Amino acid sequence: MTYDQIFLSLGSEIPPQAPSVPAGLNFVLYKQVGNVLHLSGYGPFWGNDVAPGFSGKLGSELTKEQGYAAARLTAINLLMIVREAIGTLDNVQEILEVTGFVNSTDAFTDQPFVINGCSDLLGFVFGDAGKHIRAAIGTNTLAFNLSVEISISLILAE
Amino acid sequence: MTYDQIFLSLGSEIPPQAPSVPAGLNFVLYKQVGNVLHLSGYGPFWGNDVAPGFSGKLGSELTKEQGYAAARLTAINLLMIVREAIGTLDNVQEILEVTGFVNSTDAFTDQPFVINGCSDLLGFVFGDAGKHIRAAIGTNTLAFNLSVEISISLILAE
Amino acid sequence: MTYDQIFLSLGSEIPPQAPSVPAGLNFVLYKQVGNVLHLSGYGPFWGNDVAPGFSGKLGSELTKEQGYAAARLTAINLLMIVREAIGTLDNVQEILEVTGFVNSTDAFTDQPFVINGCSDLLGFVFGDAGKHIRAAIGTNTLAFNLSVEISISLILAE
Repeated sequence: MTYDQIFLSLGSEIPPQAPSVPAGLNFVLYKQVGNVLHLSGYGPFWGNDVAPGFSGKLGSELTKEQGYAAARLTAINLLMIVREAIGTLDNVQEILEVTGFVNSTDAFTDQPFVINGCSDLLGFVFGDAGKHIRAAIGTNTLAFNLSVEISISLILAE
Repeated sequence: MTYDQIFLSLGSEIPPQAPSVPAGLNFVLYKQVGNVLHLSGYGPFWGNDVAPGFSGKLGSELTKEQGYAAARLTAINLLMIVREAIGTLDNVQEILEVTGFVNSTDAFTDQPFVINGCSDLLGFVFGDAGKHIRAAIGTNTLAFNLSVEISISLILAE
Repeated sequence: MTYDQIFLSLGSEIPPQAPSVPAGLNFVLYKQVGNVLHLSGYGPFWGNDVAPGFSGKLGSELTKEQGYAAARLTAINLLMIVREAIGTLDNVQEILEVTGFVNSTDAFTDQPFVINGCSDLLGFVFGDAGKHIRAAIGTNTLAFNLSVEISISLILAE
């Protein structure tokens, strides 16, 4: 199967609507420079809303397994943005970078486990080409009370 | 009006001194790689000092509207750094990326509203060329008790 | 002395083992795009473990001087990754970017002092070529309870 076919095999895990930015705002979800595609930070949305159960802080409101699932859904949203940008994931050469922020209590230190939910999804879709450099950072709060917010950049086939 | 003229039309909103790094430190405020200009993180300074009222945490010490104003002033400082680097904003092709950190209580979740203060200023100066990818992240504390700290990168006309 | 010789002159400050990623994970410690080398976020490790005394929060468990030392050790680890990637530091043209997160109490605001531990080490090894853009950000918690986590990118000689 190609990258795009593997992604589509996720079936009902894929939200019904691709991410979008409300009208009137001065930012966008992706931007290409040369053969590098940079994406805005995004979260575990299901269409326009945060997916049920994926708001709140790791270490109190969510278990690390729930955080992993939130990071996986975020990765699926990010790949939907890539598909909007370039049409098909088959035009991806490799994933460059993942920067993940985890909404955490002061004592929660399993950010890498949580962000593995994103990294492993990228590995599932792209195999070795999905391997990326990474930072997995804790924070005391995130927009919309998201449990995770993740940015990626990737290299396009020329 | 050109980008540079629009920026200068901000008049008394522009601090009297451009940002600088104290002598003896091993970092700089900007660095160019190919046609991409990368800037260090910066805050709502007025010359050498944090602007009065722009220190502290969103959610307790500052309202989100004050945070928006702090992000706007930060954007003005960042564009002053760009002018130091390349002489005139007319040599900017487009804004690539905005990464904004918002000094926040654990319960504050309006980081996007706050960082819009930067994004909207970039839209005012550059129009559609000011649209960028973005991450707006909360944090429990920032250097010098800044309310916001923002990094940008931008693409230069060749 | 060359960059690599200056680095090796750090002697017993250099951990006995280079950083590595456990098997089965979907991220890597470095990735090259064109002549830019990007590194994953890393911390003050001594081989496979966090160096004794370099876990915990600035502002309560560690002094800012201890944080500075942790950032210095992190920089040494990062340069070990660069040596793994390209063989010798003599192939570095200049340091591009340092992004440092400091595990901080809500009241700690000396993140720049802490991250100077990394910046100054880069200045020691590379001189003016070590000067970089930088963001020094506070956070309420980090993976493995690290005191600091730092990412760098750098430009390679062609």
